[in-house]
Amino acid sequence: MPNLNDLRTPALLLDRDKLQRNIDHMAARAKTLGVELRPHMKTAKSIEVAKLATKDQAGGITVSTLAEADYFARAGFADILYGVGITPDKLADVRAIQDLGARVTMILDNLDCAGEVVARTNALSGRFGFLIEIDSGQHRTGLLPTDERVLEIARILNKAENCELRGVMTHAGHSYSCDSIAAVREVAEAERAAVVAAAEIIRGNGLSCDIVSVGSTPTALHAEHLDGVTEMRPGVFMFSDLFQHSIGSCELEDLAVSVLTSVIAWRDDEARAMVDAGALALSQDRGAPDVNGEYAYGMAADIAGHPLPGDLRIRQMNQEHGFLPGLDHALKVGERLRILPNHVCSTAAQYDRYHVIDENGTVVDSWTRTTGW
Amino acid sequence: MPNLNDLRTPALLLDRDKLQRNIDHMAARAKTLGVELRPHMKTAKSIEVAKLATKDQAGGITVSTLAEADYFARAGFADILYGVGITPDKLADVRAIQDLGARVTMILDNLDCAGEVVARTNALSGRFGFLIEIDSGQHRTGLLPTDERVLEIARILNKAENCELRGVMTHAGHSYSCDSIAAVREVAEAERAAVVAAAEIIRGNGLSCDIVSVGSTPTALHAEHLDGVTEMRPGVFMFSDLFQHSIGSCELEDLAVSVLTSVIAWRDDEARAMVDAGALALSQDRGAPDVNGEYAYGMAADIAGHPLPGDLRIRQMNQEHGFLPGLDHALKVGERLRILPNHVCSTAAQYDRYHVIDENGTVVDSWTRTTGW
Repeated sequence: MPNLNDLRTPALLLDRDKLQRNIDHMAARAKTLGVELRPHMKTAKSIEVAKLATKDQAGGITVSTLAEADYFARAGFADILYGVGITPDKLADVRAIQDLGARVTMILDNLDCAGEVVARTNALSGRFGFLIEIDSGQHRTGLLPTDERVLEIARILNKAENCELRGVMTHAGHSYSCDSIAAVREVAEAERAAVVAAAEIIRGNGLSCDIVSVGSTPTALHAEHLDGVTEMRPGVFMFSDLFQHSIGSCELEDLAVSVLTSVIAWRDDEARAMVDAGALALSQDRGAPDVNGEYAYGMAADIAGHPLPGDLRIRQMNQEHGFLPGLDHALKVGERLRILPNHVCSTAAQYDRYHVIDENGTVVDSWTRTTGW
Repeated sequence: MPNLNDLRTPALLLDRDKLQRNIDHMAARAKTLGVELRPHMKTAKSIEVAKLATKDQAGGITVSTLAEADYFARAGFADILYGVGITPDKLADVRAIQDLGARVTMILDNLDCAGEVVARTNALSGRFGFLIEIDSGQHRTGLLPTDERVLEIARILNKAENCELRGVMTHAGHSYSCDSIAAVREVAEAERAAVVAAAEIIRGNGLSCDIVSVGSTPTALHAEHLDGVTEMRPGVFMFSDLFQHSIGSCELEDLAVSVLTSVIAWRDDEARAMVDAGALALSQDRGAPDVNGEYAYGMAADIAGHPLPGDLRIRQMNQEHGFLPGLDHALKVGERLRILPNHVCSTAAQYDRYHVIDENGTVVDSWTRTTGW
């Protein structure tokens, strides 16, 4: 295995011990809350990480693309929730993934789409399972629990020969904009209450609704209880990032993923290093503004992962250039740093593998990840 | 070949005819200006596109990563400029790429680095060529032409056994922030003058300086003359994008790349479609603000590529969700649109292939592209 001075930069690093601690913490939360953990693999997109995150769990996972569903199905993951609204033309691909041995559960929130889905599944053999998506306050997708279309969709699916209503789900993405733990708790309760209410309406009308699914890292960490919920689907908790740190989901030392980078230029007049982690290597996710209301693109740390003094951030980027101003001493061209990411889902998506490191920063493994759609 | 209704979305489309027109236009510009065209492949990252862009040219290309250098060298491209500052530890990889049959020219702007580069190349057999990077006003990287270090680096390289000073280069990235064609012309002249001045200083001291290289799409399109320059390295011109359109580099109908997407949800109350092209499929590059000073993430077009009436933009994104509000009629779940990208370098980087279409929107080919580092 190469060491951190041998890897070609930029490179994605994953700290094995931090990952394990984050996973253990969320597993304990699920146990405390009395729900199953169906980790969302949209952040990690890695078989090795999914194996760790489902250990001692029921084994189900959530994915955000059919490419992920295919990748995990081929690795033997047999219970996959595809957490982005299905379109009828994607059903043939879902069928092909199910033929690999996985049960793929889809989500939908649209009456016309439900009708078309049924028509398509009639033309495909096999069994297709769905959750109805509920809007618990994010107002992105999903129906309000009291919307009559929830029950209409449930009935359409229930009477279709090849379809199965498996339950309801919601995602409280608005937990990301909370400015206090108390506010996250309120969102978590709204998330729980909305999806449980929808399940009760469906059951009250004589239909079954086995799965009651919620999920976001902040609400999973801070919910007071999840009565009536059967599973939760957090994802970013495995790695965490500067944004999660900014909203109180983790400590800075919990961040398990960083980008290894090399200094490629130095300007004395601006005490500024240029590093080879730019807009592609870090992603352009702006995360949260800093105390001055300015945005930045990741925090600079030394090669061991310890943040440099003075909260130094990548302030500007071009495709393969990251601007790191404000240093208190000159850096040498070739010197290596790590950048802690704003939003690890976006950053990790730019790479096809993790270089796995142990607590000493020794590279101990290389884990592939999937990309694309 | 699948048609546009069969491709799994999101998918990257490349219009073959628009690409060819953009390439022909830049080839004519290079001829008019009397310089060689060394197209920058950081945007396209595709062998097929590189073949078209170097047809009737000297054959040299520019790349932004060693992964690109390796990919193009394996395809037979024999003259490659790696346009990001070299670090000494990357020289062994450059050597390996040269062993594939390519001549790789590197850039540097740092005196200490030049010394270390020479030490490393002494330990590696082979011949290593360099351009000195000049700052022509962007103030990102590079030395001012009159900086004494230009000549010091030139002398260090010149006397090293395995190294060769091949010339000077600059990138007028500040042309991207010009608000008029007249301003771009001024930047183009500053770009030309800086790098020619550096070349003259080097030659005036008895050293050779064969390559005098400039490059950015706006300055390549609008420079009044390039006297003293030997080559230019524009890249984004091949595809163009909303940002280039906003600064007058192209017409909207010149945009050769778009993202095919499906509607995954519809909200009546906000006349808003949700599409399956989100932060990963489009990238989070904000491009230029609109007339109201707001940012958006791509312009919606119909499946044939014609912009929808009313300048509709993706206004918000999550990882796999793009928010498209303000529609004048309801869209069906499953309906297909195209999104014209803000910054095509960032958007295309998320995909491993182009679905190539002809003027009728028929998919006629699939071209791979390289990703990563």
